[in-house]
Amino acid sequence: MNLIVDAGNSFLKLAVFEKNTLLKIHKTDYAEVMLLLEKVLGENKITHSILASTTHLNPDVLAFLSAHTKCLMLSHQTNLPFKNAYETPETLGLDRLALACSAVKQFPDQNTLIVDAGTCVTYDFVDKYGVYQGGAISPGLSMRFKAMHNFTGKLPLISADDYEASQIGQSTKASMQIGVVEGMANEIDGFIQSYQVDYEDLTVILTGGDHQLLSTRLKNSIFATSNFLIEGLNFILEYNKNT
Amino acid sequence: MNLIVDAGNSFLKLAVFEKNTLLKIHKTDYAEVMLLLEKVLGENKITHSILASTTHLNPDVLAFLSAHTKCLMLSHQTNLPFKNAYETPETLGLDRLALACSAVKQFPDQNTLIVDAGTCVTYDFVDKYGVYQGGAISPGLSMRFKAMHNFTGKLPLISADDYEASQIGQSTKASMQIGVVEGMANEIDGFIQSYQVDYEDLTVILTGGDHQLLSTRLKNSIFATSNFLIEGLNFILEYNKNT
Repeated sequence: MNLIVDAGNSFLKLAVFEKNTLLKIHKTDYAEVMLLLEKVLGENKITHSILASTTHLNPDVLAFLSAHTKCLMLSHQTNLPFKNAYETPETLGLDRLALACSAVKQFPDQNTLIVDAGTCVTYDFVDKYGVYQGGAISPGLSMRFKAMHNFTGKLPLISADDYEASQIGQSTKASMQIGVVEGMANEIDGFIQSYQVDYEDLTVILTGGDHQLLSTRLKNSIFATSNFLIEGLNFILEYNKNT
Repeated sequence: MNLIVDAGNSFLKLAVFEKNTLLKIHKTDYAEVMLLLEKVLGENKITHSILASTTHLNPDVLAFLSAHTKCLMLSHQTNLPFKNAYETPETLGLDRLALACSAVKQFPDQNTLIVDAGTCVTYDFVDKYGVYQGGAISPGLSMRFKAMHNFTGKLPLISADDYEASQIGQSTKASMQIGVVEGMANEIDGFIQSYQVDYEDLTVILTGGDHQLLSTRLKNSIFATSNFLIEGLNFILEYNKNT
């Protein structure tokens, strides 16, 4: 079995795969990670692991994984199953590498745009020849609320939690919620449409923490999925077992 | 003559009007404002002024204007030439009040959406009966760049200064520029289109510091103008002379 560790800014995801089948997924904060790692390794016959860290990770995590499994630390030197046309591959986020791998594996020979609505919104395009072409980055949902509060001094800190869809905000809170939520949906729809001009047969994946809130608001047809990045990491691990 | 003082977060605009005609406009920072005020009042026969402040203003500015002109300090108690359907009028930004006045004056009997691309992007809708209905607020162009840098720790601080339009960013810088600039254009186009569903004859004004960068990127037809807010403030001053 494979253990996938996706270490993000504020929490980690641990996922157990049997080859290409996702069996379990856990979300934990950094205080609890070592306990959870021991529990997961005790309960499952994990032979291989992959660690993808977009933050300054506790070195104990890598040490533990290396001691108990054959551990692959994802980096810009890792062998990947696609060609990369990015001009500055060393600055391409590891999360974006994993998303591109997931697209190559799950939608081979298709022009695929992956929209990951997380801390930032990343747009990544893999063409039907399996070449990663690049994309775009914009602020994520929570970041937009936080920025308006932190950088103005007059606007409150709010969230989309109790957002009731409407077109015209008649209070500051409703105005900000519409601006952020519908604004992001407009942004994503616009990018999808501009890619569709060049790629009629475009496949669009929407993933990331805010994909559920956004997916119902998009005009374009998309595949909405929670585990696209995790599945990409597992694919990288499987790919590197055989090379 | 009228003197309009629009005191924003980082600088002030001083504009001189002869009734409804804009004669001159000056932009200054807070260190230079008193010198510039004396110069402008020395050179022009200013009888009336209006001060709109969205920040904690140096009290000398109001004192000077009150001593030398009949000065109106814009507030939520000021008489305005439109009905306000906002549920929380006391939290409605003074800038948005001025934009609504400008719409009522310049586009009477028209359904008008005003998009002000400044520190934040504000969307304000005034219907053809002269009723301000509300709108939306989202982060402005510079704020989006600043947020991605400040709230991630990995992304650089960049701007749109040397942005070369393209669809697919092949470097981190290009990805961020596309995400912000084209993302905002998509956002604005989407809002315009959703208002057009209910208001076929919609008039759209695009103003604010970033209106030039954005106006060429919009699919919808709009009026792009630099001084819409200042003109609204002058209209409020003229309106209150006669009441």
